[in-house]
Amino acid sequence: MTILSEHMDLKAYLINKKQIVDRALESCFTGVDGRLSDLTESMRYSLLAGGKRLRPILCMAGAEAVGGNETDVLPVACALELIHTYSLIHDDLPVMDNDDLRRGIPTNHKVFGEAVALLAGDGLLTEAFNMMAEAFSKSKVSAEALLKVIGIISRAAGYQGMIGGQLADIKSEGMHAEPSLVEFIHEHKTGALIEASVTSGAILGGASPAQIKAIMSYGEKIGLTFQIADDILDIEGDSQEMGKSTGGDEEKGKITYPSAVGLNRSRQIAAELSRAAVLSLQGFDDRAEPLRRIAEYIVERNK
Amino acid sequence: MTILSEHMDLKAYLINKKQIVDRALESCFTGVDGRLSDLTESMRYSLLAGGKRLRPILCMAGAEAVGGNETDVLPVACALELIHTYSLIHDDLPVMDNDDLRRGIPTNHKVFGEAVALLAGDGLLTEAFNMMAEAFSKSKVSAEALLKVIGIISRAAGYQGMIGGQLADIKSEGMHAEPSLVEFIHEHKTGALIEASVTSGAILGGASPAQIKAIMSYGEKIGLTFQIADDILDIEGDSQEMGKSTGGDEEKGKITYPSAVGLNRSRQIAAELSRAAVLSLQGFDDRAEPLRRIAEYIVERNK
Repeated sequence: MTILSEHMDLKAYLINKKQIVDRALESCFTGVDGRLSDLTESMRYSLLAGGKRLRPILCMAGAEAVGGNETDVLPVACALELIHTYSLIHDDLPVMDNDDLRRGIPTNHKVFGEAVALLAGDGLLTEAFNMMAEAFSKSKVSAEALLKVIGIISRAAGYQGMIGGQLADIKSEGMHAEPSLVEFIHEHKTGALIEASVTSGAILGGASPAQIKAIMSYGEKIGLTFQIADDILDIEGDSQEMGKSTGGDEEKGKITYPSAVGLNRSRQIAAELSRAAVLSLQGFDDRAEPLRRIAEYIVERNK
Repeated sequence: MTILSEHMDLKAYLINKKQIVDRALESCFTGVDGRLSDLTESMRYSLLAGGKRLRPILCMAGAEAVGGNETDVLPVACALELIHTYSLIHDDLPVMDNDDLRRGIPTNHKVFGEAVALLAGDGLLTEAFNMMAEAFSKSKVSAEALLKVIGIISRAAGYQGMIGGQLADIKSEGMHAEPSLVEFIHEHKTGALIEASVTSGAILGGASPAQIKAIMSYGEKIGLTFQIADDILDIEGDSQEMGKSTGGDEEKGKITYPSAVGLNRSRQIAAELSRAAVLSLQGFDDRAEPLRRIAEYIVERNK
């Protein structure tokens, strides 16, 4: 680690990147036919409810790590947040996790009703692909790279990724917390899209095949780390800080890392994974410093 | 119309194209992790329930009309059917139209439960974009044309298209059937994706800008025709033939063309639109004959 990197201010970096994403998202779903206002309000309600914007930030940091720039990947970065938001809206529905609170405010269906919430989720997911397709005419990314990224993101978000993880998650409620099952759920439900976020940024930023491989390995590790940390926060976190009820996992009989291997071992695994993620980036220069710091931040965060 | 075209056997054409699509769809969602079997079975259940495959056929016919071939557009054609199927699954859910029967068999959530049906819809929609992105490496279409098509299809399926139409549809139940509102619903809920299907085929088939314009005009007209014919069939059709309950629109207080302008005027409008659709293709040669015949078939069909 160089002097420069030791002094890198991660907090300022995250705030700056979040502002760029928030500004871009603010213009989504505006100026449309008034007959669609329920739908656009519902989509904007959840999209602009103030998330950490982790996936877009990882996408931008992935591009910068290989010499690309944040502007060119911004449309894809925003699309990732649309996909993440859709997944939260659908997961919160009564037929799924039946949650009332998300990011400190009532869940989408509590405000707009289940029918509109369902359609808002569908709308966010679909618009994400439009955003990615339109990125071609709006930035300097190549058409081939963009198609590759659309493939990677759709597979990560799809039945073999996030959706498959959600199915396994709801099916396993109340079941014995087998470590291999927890790992399957976490890697699919959360890990896949996080890995796709940083990988997409790297591809659009012009990464070499070796760099893509390293970034994928980094992404896989921080994806799992993030979800283990989330499990721990659900037990130890402050619901005020988190903006959602804590203790919900146990109440719902959710399979988690702490329920499978205990709290201490979960902390150990998360720390090991975070270190391994940093090691994946050994061949990268200072431009990968934000990614290294994010890997550390993910285990240390309190919300 | 030439001698050749007068003798064109539309029935044989539709059967042949449907078989090509059915064969391609048959291989979807197979050979995956057993933990995902509920989800893949649910997606396959609705996808392979035997629809008319109108959107894929229009996509292939659109390509052929401008000198392209069906093989190159097959992945996108199949993706359109995945999107159509997802929309049916979500529309049938209890929070939406609450339908029990579709294509002659119980609706998806009646068999797999609401949670799996919701995820199956999400999975079909997401996989459609993967299929389109992967078409680049599997066929001879250009990356730029494919991105254009992904944009067109996602906008047609999205909040300013199909999803917006579905919102207007459920919001208008029991309301006064204002003709302009019926048109808005039909053009968005059904028309947009039908127009996008034939337009996408034409773009991938190498259409000129003038040809794309003509095909879009054709698609817009047959899209609306199709839904008006559907409204009429819901009143006059045989539920056995249709594979779903008829008379449902009136029961649910759905706004339809017959409820807005009467049955006779609806028939007139559909026939006029069908003729206008055929006229849009004036500049095309015999290779557009299937499209012309489909425009006629849409008003004459009995299921």
